[in-house]
Amino acid sequence: MEGVDHLAPERNKAQFDVDEMKIVWAGSRDVFEVSDRMARLVASDPAFRKDNRTMLGRKELFKNTLRKATYAWKRIIELRLNEQEAKQLRSYVDEPAFTDLHWGMFVPAIQGQGTDEQQQKWLPLAHKMQIIGCYAQTELGHGSNVQGLETTATFDPKTDEFVIHSPTLTSSKWWPGGLGKMSTHAVVYARLITNGQDHGVHGFIVQLRSLDDHLPLPGITVGDIGMKFGNGAYNTMDNGVLRFDHVRIPRNQMLMRSVLLLYLFLTPLLVSQVTREGKYVQSNVPRQLVYGTMVYVRQTIVADASTALSRAVCIATRYSAVRRQFGSHNGSPETQVIDYKTQQARLFPLLASAYAFRFVGEWLKWLYTDVTRRLQANDFSTLPEAHACTAGLKSLTTSATADGIEECRKLCGGHGYLCSSGLPELFAVYVPACTYEGDNIVLLLQVARHLMKTVSQLGSGKKPVGTTAYMGRVEHLMQCCCDVQKAEDWLRPNVVLEAFEARAARMSVACAKNLSQFTNQEQGFQELAADLVEAAVAHCQLIVVSKFLEKLQQDIPGKGVKQQLEVLCGVYSLFLLHKYQGDFLSTGCITPTQASLANEQLRSLYSQVRPNAIALVDAFNYTDHYLGSVLGRYDGNVYPNLYEEAWKDPLNDSVVPDGYHEYVRPMLKQQLRNARL
Amino acid sequence: MEGVDHLAPERNKAQFDVDEMKIVWAGSRDVFEVSDRMARLVASDPAFRKDNRTMLGRKELFKNTLRKATYAWKRIIELRLNEQEAKQLRSYVDEPAFTDLHWGMFVPAIQGQGTDEQQQKWLPLAHKMQIIGCYAQTELGHGSNVQGLETTATFDPKTDEFVIHSPTLTSSKWWPGGLGKMSTHAVVYARLITNGQDHGVHGFIVQLRSLDDHLPLPGITVGDIGMKFGNGAYNTMDNGVLRFDHVRIPRNQMLMRSVLLLYLFLTPLLVSQVTREGKYVQSNVPRQLVYGTMVYVRQTIVADASTALSRAVCIATRYSAVRRQFGSHNGSPETQVIDYKTQQARLFPLLASAYAFRFVGEWLKWLYTDVTRRLQANDFSTLPEAHACTAGLKSLTTSATADGIEECRKLCGGHGYLCSSGLPELFAVYVPACTYEGDNIVLLLQVARHLMKTVSQLGSGKKPVGTTAYMGRVEHLMQCCCDVQKAEDWLRPNVVLEAFEARAARMSVACAKNLSQFTNQEQGFQELAADLVEAAVAHCQLIVVSKFLEKLQQDIPGKGVKQQLEVLCGVYSLFLLHKYQGDFLSTGCITPTQASLANEQLRSLYSQVRPNAIALVDAFNYTDHYLGSVLGRYDGNVYPNLYEEAWKDPLNDSVVPDGYHEYVRPMLKQQLRNARL
Repeated sequence: MEGVDHLAPERNKAQFDVDEMKIVWAGSRDVFEVSDRMARLVASDPAFRKDNRTMLGRKELFKNTLRKATYAWKRIIELRLNEQEAKQLRSYVDEPAFTDLHWGMFVPAIQGQGTDEQQQKWLPLAHKMQIIGCYAQTELGHGSNVQGLETTATFDPKTDEFVIHSPTLTSSKWWPGGLGKMSTHAVVYARLITNGQDHGVHGFIVQLRSLDDHLPLPGITVGDIGMKFGNGAYNTMDNGVLRFDHVRIPRNQMLMRSVLLLYLFLTPLLVSQVTREGKYVQSNVPRQLVYGTMVYVRQTIVADASTALSRAVCIATRYSAVRRQFGSHNGSPETQVIDYKTQQARLFPLLASAYAFRFVGEWLKWLYTDVTRRLQANDFSTLPEAHACTAGLKSLTTSATADGIEECRKLCGGHGYLCSSGLPELFAVYVPACTYEGDNIVLLLQVARHLMKTVSQLGSGKKPVGTTAYMGRVEHLMQCCCDVQKAEDWLRPNVVLEAFEARAARMSVACAKNLSQFTNQEQGFQELAADLVEAAVAHCQLIVVSKFLEKLQQDIPGKGVKQQLEVLCGVYSLFLLHKYQGDFLSTGCITPTQASLANEQLRSLYSQVRPNAIALVDAFNYTDHYLGSVLGRYDGNVYPNLYEEAWKDPLNDSVVPDGYHEYVRPMLKQQLRNARL
Repeated sequence: MEGVDHLAPERNKAQFDVDEMKIVWAGSRDVFEVSDRMARLVASDPAFRKDNRTMLGRKELFKNTLRKATYAWKRIIELRLNEQEAKQLRSYVDEPAFTDLHWGMFVPAIQGQGTDEQQQKWLPLAHKMQIIGCYAQTELGHGSNVQGLETTATFDPKTDEFVIHSPTLTSSKWWPGGLGKMSTHAVVYARLITNGQDHGVHGFIVQLRSLDDHLPLPGITVGDIGMKFGNGAYNTMDNGVLRFDHVRIPRNQMLMRSVLLLYLFLTPLLVSQVTREGKYVQSNVPRQLVYGTMVYVRQTIVADASTALSRAVCIATRYSAVRRQFGSHNGSPETQVIDYKTQQARLFPLLASAYAFRFVGEWLKWLYTDVTRRLQANDFSTLPEAHACTAGLKSLTTSATADGIEECRKLCGGHGYLCSSGLPELFAVYVPACTYEGDNIVLLLQVARHLMKTVSQLGSGKKPVGTTAYMGRVEHLMQCCCDVQKAEDWLRPNVVLEAFEARAARMSVACAKNLSQFTNQEQGFQELAADLVEAAVAHCQLIVVSKFLEKLQQDIPGKGVKQQLEVLCGVYSLFLLHKYQGDFLSTGCITPTQASLANEQLRSLYSQVRPNAIALVDAFNYTDHYLGSVLGRYDGNVYPNLYEEAWKDPLNDSVVPDGYHEYVRPMLKQQLRNARL
């Protein structure tokens, strides 16, 4: 049966041009072509195989990652890949490695925060990978609260050095990827102390290991923090622990440049200077500037969410078409599980979400350009809004993706629990996104703060901008009535949009009203935090819905492509409306009858998705290598491959397992008394 | 700091008698004492240590499990433990092993379905563990649909034997625990064929491996199906694949007794007889009988759900009291994260759920006794209701528990992602409960079928019984109005109960009404499946709430114990009411104002839980061994232990990791060209 496409009948059902949809998904023809080329390059090279990853012990796994990461770098050089190509190649290798932090955090930190001299010294070394760098910020006792970091960097004017020290156990650096076993250098964040005065957290370039023998330098204790969630997954990464015992570095290794690139930060850090005499010179960079770069980082996280969710959806959708269960009459084949409405009602909203997150991610890219342009023109007016918006979207999309991957796993029945389904590892490797770069709940509280501020300023004549612009129509939104009378009315974009706007506006206003009853605003904010989080979610969902609707205003070529996207947009918004109908009803935005009509329309949209489902996941253009799932195989030839995969488990190396003779046989032979257990 | 109780200040805050609460949690003083004794016995024996489990490769892990399972058996014999004690001991060893299936499935299957002769032959061997058995039902192509199994057992009258055969690849047995490497015997489910006629699925005792050398017998292909979700977790189990090539067994190894004990079944199987001449004699057991035993199995699953959820909640609650983040003023300690309202709003409903599931599980035990008693008196009247109820509660509690464990992991911030937190393994080992013994969505559809039947019979004078009794008051429930006027009104049990009853009744009636518009009822059921699932959930939530309220009607001794449970019951029900307010509002059971008052009351209840939170999880009486979590340590001494735990990772065995010299050093030295990658 080799070469037979078991899903061909499904592909023939598609009512749109899949190749054109691939371009839409990729964002542009250029991006598609690079991405496609890199994906194939990786998939066709046996050195990048990853199918045994979940069976390896930690050491073997890690060694294998070192080989792959180094090999990837070798190929990048040999093929003279440009930056975009190299990035794509690394992402298709699909294995977290120390190089991720080197390129994604260490290099940008120096680019962003290093002076010209610092850049000239360190960047060439980093670009050629003559040194390996990581980003040492979080500590055993401090993640979210960056301002509470305890590591100290005390200036010693006698030697013109900083003394980096870990004064407490909880000040141990903890979590940085690449730190545990690989990094030769780190950007270390520590409290700057000059003349006995604490100037808050700053960044320092610190060498950790000898470039000769890779041993930790004197005063440095460094190691891996141990196994993390899942098989394979993030265990290919050496997240590390690091303690300093009065480690001295030259003064010129404090990052002293004035434009920041920040990661993982909830609150802006400072980039200032220390003079030869130990005088602390505060940076004159407007604090707002730092938010610009958070917009950048979070934009990539949203794009990654759509990628991770779409992988899971692709696997679950294909296997739902392959798998049959019940419904056989007189020897006819059983029903494909994708034809069950309960399966559709769980799966198709996730398919729609993957597309929705793709488009909002695309829009965030534009937002970043827009913010950057404005900053260069000294226009800070949209910055707080843009910052809140990206914080909220990071939270919304990563939470939905983590839950969505697990839902896809369950949608595959028992077999989704096997590592060979690819879904357990996808889940385990993805979930930290809910915590890093801002805990998702903490971020929603930031959004809520911004919303409360926006509401409080409504009377002042200050016009809300960007994604909060709808608040400017708050008077209308507080009293407008949804005019849906039949199910199809829910297909009108303005109807949907106004319902989401009214819900978000009314929830924010209600929170603001409740807040105003507290004399101490901060205490009120703490007390009402759970409600505020819900208002923030409503606001963020509105953004995703509105950006999907905006996308549909564009010219989208290709037979049937736009129509499919319209259906998905309908699924996404009406699914949310149904799931959160409590919000819509309690704020009086819609009536129970209208809620029920929305649900009816949603059912009809599921039927429209059904024949296109396989083609809609084909449009992601994922290779079997990248998916790494027997259940999600392009050709749908699941069962023979699931069977073959089983025999590769190390336990099957021998017929009689290790331990049988020592332990089990004595039990069977009733000779346990003499066994050594 | 050894021996210091860092959580002592929290324990001192408790407003109730923890020791009395332990009895309530255990169910009785007797159960508490056995459980406590067995837990300590396991925890104090170094042979049962499990702290390295997540770091082991598959073979090593499995070998270690063989040692522990055999050792546990040895201790059971040495200490002459009774059945209850042995079961408790095995559960505290806390490691899935082949013995689980032997005791939990193989032995009961023979007890339930074997004739007296079969029992006399096989049970003594099994009871002494001279043979190891498993339960081979599911196949590569069939899980939920047991009637669709493909394995055949063809009677050969010439030799008086059955020929067991796997006619297709998808007929390979797949998933049975203990099958892959350990079982010498299996109860195999196969289609019985006599005289060319298919009599449906029946059970057969088949020997798989030689008792001399443990090698598979001729015609048998057997192995492990490979890695499953998570580190450690279910990878200690040899879930297996099994193929038969015309394997012959004597006729007397078909299970031919008339009382069934069924596991994993969605639909009842048959127990009949085949005579020497190959004549098939249909069983005369009333089909309803088989449901009785499903009630039993699902009852234990509900109890297990409360155990798993309470473990996660215990870890998250303790660490939330240990962990501090933000909120420091002038050097004061930061705020304990358990004091944040967002943390409370996520954590305390899970704490309340653990207790709620405990009590509904306890009630299910009673239900099982009641059903058994009735069956013995030939009273089948309550059986369908009891069956639907247990199916629904299995679904509700396992889904909520799986989600709840992951939520607890997220509530621990980044550190929850470390295996040493115990939470990743707890999640990975728990989630299959959502799929086995009936996929949770399929089960809810069964509940919905029962509800639709109940509604359709309301006019006929047939009185709904048990958990559907409220349907008998449907006329009142369809038009009653909630009379809540202030937040505290939501503390009145009758108010809460009626709101949940009205919501459930109205959702069922609405579904029935929509169904009646279809000419083809089955098609209507398929089409409206998603709505029906929601109605079933509403019904099941009502059951849990009502059983919690009933528990509070009992006499519960101990200072403050009942008051705490009242608070938790309020949290559980008002949390659900808030989360599902869309249901309550769309059915007009409550007004938006009343929903808002419920939310207000909920906030106030959280404040009442707060000082008792640590004591409420102490009441679970879990040893540190059983919890297996650095974050959840009884003494709260988290950080030094987290730090120590890190160094145990195999990657830290050497300072310079394996792979550095081969791969990474050539890269750093710019000599990649010559490296062997």
